[in-house]
Amino acid sequence: MLPHHDGSPLYVSDQAPRPGDTVRVRVRVPEAWGAAASVHVRSTPDREPRFHEARPLGASDGWQWWEAEVEILNPANGYRFLISRADGSHWWLNAAGLFPFETLDAEDFTLLSYPAPPEWAAATVMYQIFPDRFGRSPAAALRETPAWAVPAAWGDPVATGQPARSHQFYGGDLDGIVAHLDHLERLGVTLLYLTPVFPAGSSHRYDAESFDRVDPALGGDAALVRLVEAAHARGFKVIGDLTSNHSGNRHEWFRAALHTPDAAESAFYYWLDEQNERYASWLDVPELPKFNWSSTELRRRFIDGPGSVVARWLRAPFHLDGWRIDVANMTGRLQGEDLNALVRQTIRRTMIAENPNTILLGESTNDASADFQGDGWHGAMTYTTFTRPVWSWLSKPGSPSSFFGLPYGTIPQTDGREFVDAHLRFTAGYPWRTRLATMNALDTHDTPRFRTHAIDGGVPVAFGLSATLPGIPVVFAGDEFGLIGIDGEGSRTPMPWDTADEPEVAATIDLYAALIHLRTAHAALNGGGMRWVHVGADVLVYVRECAEESVLLVAARAAGAVTLPAGAVVGEPTRLLGDAAVSMVGGGIRVETAGPSFTAWALPGVDVPD
Amino acid sequence: MLPHHDGSPLYVSDQAPRPGDTVRVRVRVPEAWGAAASVHVRSTPDREPRFHEARPLGASDGWQWWEAEVEILNPANGYRFLISRADGSHWWLNAAGLFPFETLDAEDFTLLSYPAPPEWAAATVMYQIFPDRFGRSPAAALRETPAWAVPAAWGDPVATGQPARSHQFYGGDLDGIVAHLDHLERLGVTLLYLTPVFPAGSSHRYDAESFDRVDPALGGDAALVRLVEAAHARGFKVIGDLTSNHSGNRHEWFRAALHTPDAAESAFYYWLDEQNERYASWLDVPELPKFNWSSTELRRRFIDGPGSVVARWLRAPFHLDGWRIDVANMTGRLQGEDLNALVRQTIRRTMIAENPNTILLGESTNDASADFQGDGWHGAMTYTTFTRPVWSWLSKPGSPSSFFGLPYGTIPQTDGREFVDAHLRFTAGYPWRTRLATMNALDTHDTPRFRTHAIDGGVPVAFGLSATLPGIPVVFAGDEFGLIGIDGEGSRTPMPWDTADEPEVAATIDLYAALIHLRTAHAALNGGGMRWVHVGADVLVYVRECAEESVLLVAARAAGAVTLPAGAVVGEPTRLLGDAAVSMVGGGIRVETAGPSFTAWALPGVDVPD
Repeated sequence: MLPHHDGSPLYVSDQAPRPGDTVRVRVRVPEAWGAAASVHVRSTPDREPRFHEARPLGASDGWQWWEAEVEILNPANGYRFLISRADGSHWWLNAAGLFPFETLDAEDFTLLSYPAPPEWAAATVMYQIFPDRFGRSPAAALRETPAWAVPAAWGDPVATGQPARSHQFYGGDLDGIVAHLDHLERLGVTLLYLTPVFPAGSSHRYDAESFDRVDPALGGDAALVRLVEAAHARGFKVIGDLTSNHSGNRHEWFRAALHTPDAAESAFYYWLDEQNERYASWLDVPELPKFNWSSTELRRRFIDGPGSVVARWLRAPFHLDGWRIDVANMTGRLQGEDLNALVRQTIRRTMIAENPNTILLGESTNDASADFQGDGWHGAMTYTTFTRPVWSWLSKPGSPSSFFGLPYGTIPQTDGREFVDAHLRFTAGYPWRTRLATMNALDTHDTPRFRTHAIDGGVPVAFGLSATLPGIPVVFAGDEFGLIGIDGEGSRTPMPWDTADEPEVAATIDLYAALIHLRTAHAALNGGGMRWVHVGADVLVYVRECAEESVLLVAARAAGAVTLPAGAVVGEPTRLLGDAAVSMVGGGIRVETAGPSFTAWALPGVDVPD
Repeated sequence: MLPHHDGSPLYVSDQAPRPGDTVRVRVRVPEAWGAAASVHVRSTPDREPRFHEARPLGASDGWQWWEAEVEILNPANGYRFLISRADGSHWWLNAAGLFPFETLDAEDFTLLSYPAPPEWAAATVMYQIFPDRFGRSPAAALRETPAWAVPAAWGDPVATGQPARSHQFYGGDLDGIVAHLDHLERLGVTLLYLTPVFPAGSSHRYDAESFDRVDPALGGDAALVRLVEAAHARGFKVIGDLTSNHSGNRHEWFRAALHTPDAAESAFYYWLDEQNERYASWLDVPELPKFNWSSTELRRRFIDGPGSVVARWLRAPFHLDGWRIDVANMTGRLQGEDLNALVRQTIRRTMIAENPNTILLGESTNDASADFQGDGWHGAMTYTTFTRPVWSWLSKPGSPSSFFGLPYGTIPQTDGREFVDAHLRFTAGYPWRTRLATMNALDTHDTPRFRTHAIDGGVPVAFGLSATLPGIPVVFAGDEFGLIGIDGEGSRTPMPWDTADEPEVAATIDLYAALIHLRTAHAALNGGGMRWVHVGADVLVYVRECAEESVLLVAARAAGAVTLPAGAVVGEPTRLLGDAAVSMVGGGIRVETAGPSFTAWALPGVDVPD
């Protein structure tokens, strides 16, 4: 047991402070670890360290609690604790853990005074839908097939090779999603994330031809209105997907500018010659010309103000609840230019003016922390904090995989300690509320499906972690049907609705539903504190905590037994889900797993002396 | 032995690449560690990872060498290595070390395409002078004592309490420095850093009344011209000290603006009322009103262009060789505003236009890495990378000290492993050339003197590290006389010139001179590679390397014996300095220390196969 702080309400008096406020921050020190002689909090207003001495609040359940003030003087306010123990040793506690000597500013805990994400962000469960592959309404058969399309029947296998790759057209549409909302309600998800719905030249539609209308092949604008209305009626939020890094080369803006240096839209792109013929594009893919955000007119049309694309789809009659932004990490960045902060801040400002109760997620598949300090993106769609670590812990050794484009050859293997280490390392750079709004995806439309290479029994463990670690749990449509896929393209499988009643599929759907309902039913899992209590090679034990209740969680990839030290958690556990055995041993709790498993118990809330 | 890379010429084909260049980077892998099956380099152009496969160059002296290309597409280009071993394991190598799983972008190695620091930066030895306390010319007696001054005789103790604190006037002047250049030449230093010389209201002169003239009490402008000319004649560089965060409240700009909202200078400061009466200031000290860098006129007068303060003192007749910038970390930062990048980039642009062969150092006493990515400051005056770690390794346990304002009570103790760990942790965020231009100070005018609390025999070890680790060695005037001081004020002791011939003082001066000459005589110590070969609690062994020669260094705080594995270094060592014993044992080298000591040996250069 070690001293602990995180950004949750047990430890931080205000989750959405305003400039000039003073926030009380608390740290708990286990008496078994050693009494603290003094505790200081270091903050860095205007980037210069300042120390405040903490006062003891008293002890409860074997923990000493201390409290100090942090003044909210900057938009992002880093802070850390210096714990001076009675034995003369000194310990720094930051978001990466406990250290016997000074630590990096980038690993400080952070309090933000930017406008806060919507309250629902920390308590939502995302379901990701690739519209061409989810559901097909009867009207779909009556529509014209797009010119780019290679028509496919719903049961056809996905082509991962050229020329059909990304051009198969299964004809899913937005009304096809409406038709399956019962399934999503039963599953328990609360946020639908639609990959792009604008007209484009491919099945993924990341090569938009326009941002002004929904693709007629998906049912057009009216279908989006019907979908959002139907979703809202059931309490779902719905967010869309925008490409801020690039458009398609058939986009109306690009076509106006190509070979036309005098066009108003010429300034929207980076031209490499004076004839507007060659241009910068995403990873040199000519279909995806890169936006030049130094253009005020581009910002006005796309992201800035009520007349922009960003704003328009948040308003009546569409009422989207936010945006996921594609390739957020590269947006506005080209060689010597970096306009990323301008773009992300402008998008968020526009959204706040339109409807502050909306969410803004940025795709940044690698180390995302530098861009996610609260001034724009609320959370990240990233693979470093959760996705890759969980694959490395729970995949079969030697599984061949491109592994997210990293040249390993096979999926690299780690044990549970390294899983937690990697998770901590990459989340330490995030403010707490950014972490709560960051996607804990097992897979997405851009990756293989997790189950493809998972160890036997690995899926419940992995999705259990997704559902209960800080962050937004994510179901990529079809995962709950047990689908597999060897790469991003291959994972875009049409939903096999007719298999839903097969016993194995039904059991998988039930598993997902059970874990999602666990998540949504417990306040501690939706923004509560996060504390690791045992980190081993095969068994991980952690607890999510708030004043009202706690939830104890055990993720195991193999059989094992763990005895938690007395005081690690308090109270007698009540089983919520899963089959690990639990018993009280002396003052502690003993947990035994028979194999890969995910188990949750309820515990009392945390008592903070005052 | 572990795989190794650093930014030095052994491993990087170009220290000053330009945009669009391709740089070859090399990594060496010890055969004893295990053969690499493949090596990739990851870079992140426009912030998206890209991998290039390295090619084997062959083996030499037990090391495999690999080489790959990095394209210089952005101003700062991070890169790291992925080493896939024949045993199937994968290892990431970044500036923080070797890791079995993914690492942070902030710890990548970095290649910069910004204009490079002057070549002399990596090969200079700094001597810091506090002008009131260094030397007093005969003319000083004829000058008027400033109004703020509390006159003191040269032998008087420094008053650390009020009211005399910071107001004692010993009457040192710039001609008093000229008179002692023989001492500095004998010592071997090559860069004189003068704390402020502008008229002010205190002995430290960080509360400038003007940036347009040298304080008459120091001899005025003509004395600075004489000093720089005399210094240049002996091959010394000379840099000044500017306060970009604030002026004094008696500054001509501030006096023009106080109570005068209509003044042109009103926009230079942050006023808290409409009468220009209350204002923001450095740590709320009213004597130090904070600059508002959103003022174009302030930038024009102070930092932007040939008419600015920054430019003027670099030109004839003054010819300063650069600037140290005070409180660089807080500059331009107040609450919601952050103009720091604008200020540092503007200063450097102005300096380049005036004389690109000048250096720009920024004071940032804590974690400095975020601001030091090469767009402005060449190097840092900081205490995290070297100063505090070396104090914690080499101070007497329990020494009472404010320790740089951190509330420890006494100086925290670490062993050699933690010293290296802290040093690595804080330097990993710096590009290599920033690291080479960063000050490795044992103490400064703002800190206690290192010797005050050093273990017996600790000074040679500490200054040996300062002189031979990557970075600029620093002598704070008087350290070489064995002075002590319990805080920054108390350390501003007048130079005890008349003690120079006392045996203990003479021995200390000789020690400093010997280590400085070691530094300046060996190319490997001036920009060569840096590799730790043994890190223990009491004994540290490292090697600085280039193609022509290597230097093996042993820093010990106690008696100890270390046998380096065969192949850790190559060749038979030739003693350069110090008294540790060395012997060849089997294929390796055995080093024995009898107590605290610093020892250096010459070794052959490194053979890179090609």
